[in-house]
Amino acid sequence: MASDGHICERRRAAERRLRVISGHLHQRDQDGHVAVSAQECKAEAPGDNPAKAATAAMPKRQEIMKWNGWGYGDSRFLFNKKGQAEFTGKYRLSGLIIPSLKDWMENTFGANLQHKAPATDCHNDVVKIVELACQHNVCLIPYGGTSVSSALECPPEETRSIVSLDTSQMNRILWIDEKNLTVHVEAGIIGQELESQLNESGYCTGHEPDSMEFSSLGGWVATRASGMKKNIYGNIEDLVVHIKMVTPRGVIEKSCQGPRMSTGPDIHHFIMGSETLGVVTEVTMKIRPVPEYQKYGSIVFPNFQQGVACLREVAKQRCAPASIRLMDNEQFQFLKPQVSSIFTSFLDGLKKFYITKFKGFDPHHLCVATLLFEGDREKVLQHEKQVYDIAAKFGLAAGEDNGQRGYMLTFVIAYLRVLDLCRNVKERIVRECKERGVQFPPLSTCVTQTYDAGACVYFYFAFNYRGLGDPIHVYEQVEHAAREEILANGGSLSHHHGGKLRKEWMKEAVSSVGLGMIKSVKEYVDPHNIFGNRNLL
Amino acid sequence: MASDGHICERRRAAERRLRVISGHLHQRDQDGHVAVSAQECKAEAPGDNPAKAATAAMPKRQEIMKWNGWGYGDSRFLFNKKGQAEFTGKYRLSGLIIPSLKDWMENTFGANLQHKAPATDCHNDVVKIVELACQHNVCLIPYGGTSVSSALECPPEETRSIVSLDTSQMNRILWIDEKNLTVHVEAGIIGQELESQLNESGYCTGHEPDSMEFSSLGGWVATRASGMKKNIYGNIEDLVVHIKMVTPRGVIEKSCQGPRMSTGPDIHHFIMGSETLGVVTEVTMKIRPVPEYQKYGSIVFPNFQQGVACLREVAKQRCAPASIRLMDNEQFQFLKPQVSSIFTSFLDGLKKFYITKFKGFDPHHLCVATLLFEGDREKVLQHEKQVYDIAAKFGLAAGEDNGQRGYMLTFVIAYLRVLDLCRNVKERIVRECKERGVQFPPLSTCVTQTYDAGACVYFYFAFNYRGLGDPIHVYEQVEHAAREEILANGGSLSHHHGGKLRKEWMKEAVSSVGLGMIKSVKEYVDPHNIFGNRNLL
Repeated sequence: MASDGHICERRRAAERRLRVISGHLHQRDQDGHVAVSAQECKAEAPGDNPAKAATAAMPKRQEIMKWNGWGYGDSRFLFNKKGQAEFTGKYRLSGLIIPSLKDWMENTFGANLQHKAPATDCHNDVVKIVELACQHNVCLIPYGGTSVSSALECPPEETRSIVSLDTSQMNRILWIDEKNLTVHVEAGIIGQELESQLNESGYCTGHEPDSMEFSSLGGWVATRASGMKKNIYGNIEDLVVHIKMVTPRGVIEKSCQGPRMSTGPDIHHFIMGSETLGVVTEVTMKIRPVPEYQKYGSIVFPNFQQGVACLREVAKQRCAPASIRLMDNEQFQFLKPQVSSIFTSFLDGLKKFYITKFKGFDPHHLCVATLLFEGDREKVLQHEKQVYDIAAKFGLAAGEDNGQRGYMLTFVIAYLRVLDLCRNVKERIVRECKERGVQFPPLSTCVTQTYDAGACVYFYFAFNYRGLGDPIHVYEQVEHAAREEILANGGSLSHHHGGKLRKEWMKEAVSSVGLGMIKSVKEYVDPHNIFGNRNLL
Repeated sequence: MASDGHICERRRAAERRLRVISGHLHQRDQDGHVAVSAQECKAEAPGDNPAKAATAAMPKRQEIMKWNGWGYGDSRFLFNKKGQAEFTGKYRLSGLIIPSLKDWMENTFGANLQHKAPATDCHNDVVKIVELACQHNVCLIPYGGTSVSSALECPPEETRSIVSLDTSQMNRILWIDEKNLTVHVEAGIIGQELESQLNESGYCTGHEPDSMEFSSLGGWVATRASGMKKNIYGNIEDLVVHIKMVTPRGVIEKSCQGPRMSTGPDIHHFIMGSETLGVVTEVTMKIRPVPEYQKYGSIVFPNFQQGVACLREVAKQRCAPASIRLMDNEQFQFLKPQVSSIFTSFLDGLKKFYITKFKGFDPHHLCVATLLFEGDREKVLQHEKQVYDIAAKFGLAAGEDNGQRGYMLTFVIAYLRVLDLCRNVKERIVRECKERGVQFPPLSTCVTQTYDAGACVYFYFAFNYRGLGDPIHVYEQVEHAAREEILANGGSLSHHHGGKLRKEWMKEAVSSVGLGMIKSVKEYVDPHNIFGNRNLL
């Protein structure tokens, strides 16, 4: 728990400046990180940057110090093979052996090394923190591990003290239930850590947002996250069995851990995506045995239209692999190094698969789908055959792939008019950039995923700001125009990437009565707006 | 739209009396119908029964009269093969041919038979009705087609006029979108009608609650319904893409028909299961091509424990058929006529399937699972093999079946302790009956379904009330005790069968803050409690 105060706002301004670095088409990834090294930042960030010092020094200090006491994090006593206490770490006493320490502690304090204190209950700590925040009218912004789209930015109009509530120490797996295939976890755990710990027991959740190395379970719940393997494992709402959340009104949780309840509306859905009601402290999720076998693949299409039609047919036949993503031609050009490897393996694939047709595809129209199959080996191979059979019907070709994946920026779900939506939004971005004085062609490209009843489109956009007076403002204007175009084409926001912009999306997404319902819940649960990030309301 | 006033209460009392008919173990089915003929009711219903006259005469009159004008429902003009107008139906003018009618109408009114008036917009009618109800402070109770567990019973404490809003005429399929595989339907349509109309176009929703011959789409949404084929098609929350609902505060709907949105909490979940917020007028649902092939089957287990273990393994391997239900031994005894046919086909099955072991199963412990597989033929056969392979691992035997299905009464989801829960609840029912003076052994039996992360248990209970002073009261006390036992064993209500009892379930299911959130939505959407059935709040 550290007080950030208003430094956030300045830091964010610096970060946003990095989005459009002159001469480089760098893009902020999902997790608010910028794809340049610290070295480059220093050289290129324009003007005075007070946040830089903080980001360079402070995190390093935090990393090496104990979070809960004095001294270095790696300073502790361990017992060596002879049972002697030995001081660890890089402190000047490190390596010191104190043979009598154990006896001394046992005799002086009555300590018994066999006796371990039960783990502290982080949930109750959060209850106390929230109570204190209410008592002293302090604004709380929980922090899981990322801050995509400025979700954790402090609202400039906030006059109270703001406390950033870091959940990263609340990261234990509390139990695994192998009968019902569920896991109960503290919500501060980071995705990668959760999967890796579960893997040790032979299980996985299958929830893999691209940010899984940084984003937390609590964040997934609060923002209604989606993962790349949702075709098989489902999105966060399909994976969650039980949620515990601390709010100013008290703790919200269901009394039972059953897989489905119909006692009234499902209150989990009041929580998922809410962002501003409280702190998610514990979650029970579904788990599955780790898939025995994984296989990546790719399909090359003569054009985007054919690719969309194929993905639609795959959805119709309900045989979508764990992941299937279709890149447009611009994306294909953009990812040439990756694509060349796709092509190599694709040509190898020609020898392995029953390819029906292979015409001279035009590299300026061609597009590629990347696929990931998971399961037991025999089923994966059957599944792969089924999908490639569909691809073949479209006069296309399929091959194996090394399965690299990129980072995505903005997500929407389209409906019905996928092709129109993709073309219109991409053209609008190009047009808006031009009209606002951007002197170089912007990157305006998309990737689609499939849903039973529609599609999900990821848009990427970046531009070279050389010669622009206020590039941030231009960026925001173009982003706003793209949103307008998406809405006009029947789309909406589908993923956890709303942040401060989610407010705008929501206004358009639900009727005023829908918005009123959400507000009435907020007013009941958090009448003094303690959870005041103002992302939604 | 007909004014029911307080007659409902009296009618219900009569219906409830029928639940426990002396000398017969009759059971009310899901839809509030009693499994005895009208003849039997007359003979056996105790005492004076004012509602009987209404149910005997009124519905028949309603059936034969036009709902929207004067005269019989089957009275109309049709044009015969010669193009002559012919009067239809059973009225005394029926069969009359009026050759000049067409010319007369065209010349007199300028009518053109090619020109058809566009369908009236039922949704707007509902908007007007709700506005009027608000203006005159009239309580509205929408009626879809059933009233299980007294959900549509008029609250005795209600002092305002109560209007029963019959949605049965709002039953059109407005469009089918074959690209996105969705259908947009007026919410008054009855399940059977929806499936049958969709089937004509080659599609289905796959949502099949046992009440599908009587229950409506709007009712499914309002009560958060589950269907017997949920393993493949999902429950109502998985099938719904868009909901339009008229409330006293205005119309609630999302602005887009995308398959997933993450602009904030999903407001569909504020509606699904709410029962008391408004009238669902239109719904967009997912559809699928009608499965090419269906196959029923059954598995016989030496005892209930083995059956539960097998269903768990099927869930673990994620290969549950469209439907899989495990009957306990009492159910097996109860359904003997059905079971004998299962056995016949089961023995036939021995010749067809690779049965590993067939020990002399004890008929007093034996239990049976019934299965339904759906899909294309080849996959169904593969799927069947996979499930029967699992069954074989449990030392069990599998065979084909004619696939009859029964009606269920009370539903709960159990978690972890399925066997304990089943045993405890069944024993509690028997004990409670005995303690309350029931002189004959009650029917106390259960059926389980499987979920990824748990199980769903259906309990059946009925008793012979001969010699009891107030059998209704005993019935309610035993039902209450069963609920207590279910909650104590970690279960909750999983299905749409809450009705007036749902209030009790919900109090236990969500913490007081959860209940407060639901209340805050109700207070915002319907501050004067126009939708006053009081099922939840």
